[in-house]
Amino acid sequence: MRRVVLLTPGPSPVPDEVLKEIGQPLIHHRTEEYKKILEEVFDSLKKVFFTQRPVLIFSSSGTGAMEAAVSNFINSKDKVLVIEGGKFGQRWTEILQAYKVSNVVKVEVEWGKTLPASKLQELINVHKDVRAVFATLCETSTGTLFDIKGYGDVIKKRETLLIVDAISGLLSDPLYMDEWNVDVVVCGSQKGMMLPPGLSFLSFSQKAESFLERSDLPHYYFDVKKYKKSLDNKDTPFTSSVSLIRGLHVALKTIIDFGVENMFKKSAFLAETIRKIFVEAGFTLFSEYPSNAVSSIVSPVDSIRLIKTLRSRFGVSIAGGQAHLKGKIFRVAHMGYINEQDLLFGMLCLDKVLREMGFNPKCSLASKLGEVLNESSNY
Amino acid sequence: MRRVVLLTPGPSPVPDEVLKEIGQPLIHHRTEEYKKILEEVFDSLKKVFFTQRPVLIFSSSGTGAMEAAVSNFINSKDKVLVIEGGKFGQRWTEILQAYKVSNVVKVEVEWGKTLPASKLQELINVHKDVRAVFATLCETSTGTLFDIKGYGDVIKKRETLLIVDAISGLLSDPLYMDEWNVDVVVCGSQKGMMLPPGLSFLSFSQKAESFLERSDLPHYYFDVKKYKKSLDNKDTPFTSSVSLIRGLHVALKTIIDFGVENMFKKSAFLAETIRKIFVEAGFTLFSEYPSNAVSSIVSPVDSIRLIKTLRSRFGVSIAGGQAHLKGKIFRVAHMGYINEQDLLFGMLCLDKVLREMGFNPKCSLASKLGEVLNESSNY
Repeated sequence: MRRVVLLTPGPSPVPDEVLKEIGQPLIHHRTEEYKKILEEVFDSLKKVFFTQRPVLIFSSSGTGAMEAAVSNFINSKDKVLVIEGGKFGQRWTEILQAYKVSNVVKVEVEWGKTLPASKLQELINVHKDVRAVFATLCETSTGTLFDIKGYGDVIKKRETLLIVDAISGLLSDPLYMDEWNVDVVVCGSQKGMMLPPGLSFLSFSQKAESFLERSDLPHYYFDVKKYKKSLDNKDTPFTSSVSLIRGLHVALKTIIDFGVENMFKKSAFLAETIRKIFVEAGFTLFSEYPSNAVSSIVSPVDSIRLIKTLRSRFGVSIAGGQAHLKGKIFRVAHMGYINEQDLLFGMLCLDKVLREMGFNPKCSLASKLGEVLNESSNY
Repeated sequence: MRRVVLLTPGPSPVPDEVLKEIGQPLIHHRTEEYKKILEEVFDSLKKVFFTQRPVLIFSSSGTGAMEAAVSNFINSKDKVLVIEGGKFGQRWTEILQAYKVSNVVKVEVEWGKTLPASKLQELINVHKDVRAVFATLCETSTGTLFDIKGYGDVIKKRETLLIVDAISGLLSDPLYMDEWNVDVVVCGSQKGMMLPPGLSFLSFSQKAESFLERSDLPHYYFDVKKYKKSLDNKDTPFTSSVSLIRGLHVALKTIIDFGVENMFKKSAFLAETIRKIFVEAGFTLFSEYPSNAVSSIVSPVDSIRLIKTLRSRFGVSIAGGQAHLKGKIFRVAHMGYINEQDLLFGMLCLDKVLREMGFNPKCSLASKLGEVLNESSNY
């Protein structure tokens, strides 16, 4: 009888109408019917990315799109800069290393902290010949937001690309690709996009397009030029993930009807509310510059045990800390389709399990959330 | 009111119980519940591949797994041999070229014909230093079967890998990976596996494992060692395609209950029946060594128009010819979940549209199929 409640930063819950569409009998991917779906999907994705440029769809996890960003836009001799503020910032470096791009300036930011745009400016003044800056919109491992708009200002007049992992941030934290001069944006399906995992997305600026010719790194399945050419023909170069893309079609309609900026507002409201309550209840926030997608809380108890108990007893999934933060923090997501109902039940279970584990919050997280929601004009 | 009838060599139809499972609400991928699913899936995949070795799962189309076979097992200096009997044989060469593996012996086989193992033996006698032979179980573009068992005998005692694209053939054409000494097998989800597109599979022999250390080609998302390590922990290195893998779980149960070898028999019966009927009705088979997965028929009319009409009038999808075979052949699949009911209706519509296009089959394809099915002890 138990229902699963996902408060994890991916996979996040998927609306029923999307699940229904995903479970439809298969149609062929080279038909007019499917071309029409793809056409509408490609149009809607532009609205979600705030770009006039094409948005490509890969069948892969978000990491596949990150690899595509490296293997299509970078030359092995390039000097590149990576902002590493957590596990996913580090992933950029790992991919660059896998491709033997050796001239990497690693900017290690303490986990939970961010890098001000002024600091990037200083770094760029020193490393004038950097051809690409790799950044993360929301660093999922710490729940920290990075100043992509500011980085865009630093980069825009240079022959340098700003390449952004927006996998967990998109649709929760504002990102205006064209207006902010972001050159490459990658995203996954299982976060703000309200879909199961299995699709990833990549959009690239006109400036980035010129970098395609400079790249000498190998790629075949993730060949951006091939996907771009197919897209012009409302097609995909390899067999399309028909079922997930039909789900995407419905999810994007829902998102656009609701309003992309309303998605930001919804996540911001839930994020700010939850964090205020945690602070009032005596918890410490882990991130100094938190994202709308996920909140990291310093755990007053062993977070591994906390998470296991929440899951096994109540079916509530929250995330723990990664690497050196294992056991030390827990993370509650409020991205995509996660709503106040999910959070309310999650807080109730947290109240209960924390008390059982010997920590008494100063006030009940669930009661406090109930009060705020009662008073809020948002609900 | 119209139902879609898929007689295409992927996507092929998906059983209702699999679709239902795919449409279930999301669960998290790092839970005991999901680990149990993965464990059962990994076990079942070994039965389907007839191997004791691990079978890895990627979120990608089949081409992604082909790329993984190249980028993990090949060294850029290697001399390799590619058997090219159609579009998918050519894909091996394209991937090798993308990775700048330049020492490629291309064995071009006329489309629709096959390469006897004795011929491969002769080639290997000349090119003794070949480190890998790339082959295709069923060349989907022509519906031709290749003698993988025979190639295995040629290769087995050498320090050479036999790498096989079994994307469309697996579960229709017999393939006994361990017994036949196949070193790398790749597969996709949307064919014999009775799933939507979006997953791919790769298994590799002990011999192939030793080649992992020799490879100098870059890979990150398709890093075989990383997937192997995760598999040992009943996990996947990147966010798992939860919904499709839950569908896979149900599909594999269905397949194993039915019997993997019964899947071969079922496809063989349908394939032989269909081809006998086409010949009786005055058609010419295109392939001289046809696969159980798909039949290629020389089209007596423009096959592009034929296919369009079948689809728009009756919702029946068959496939056309690719490259120089465009308009010249049509292909009817009988893989995976495709059954006699689908084929019977397909033949009825083919009868009708062919007559309208000015070609009168010597006998009705549908009536003939009905007769055979009536007399057969299989039904």
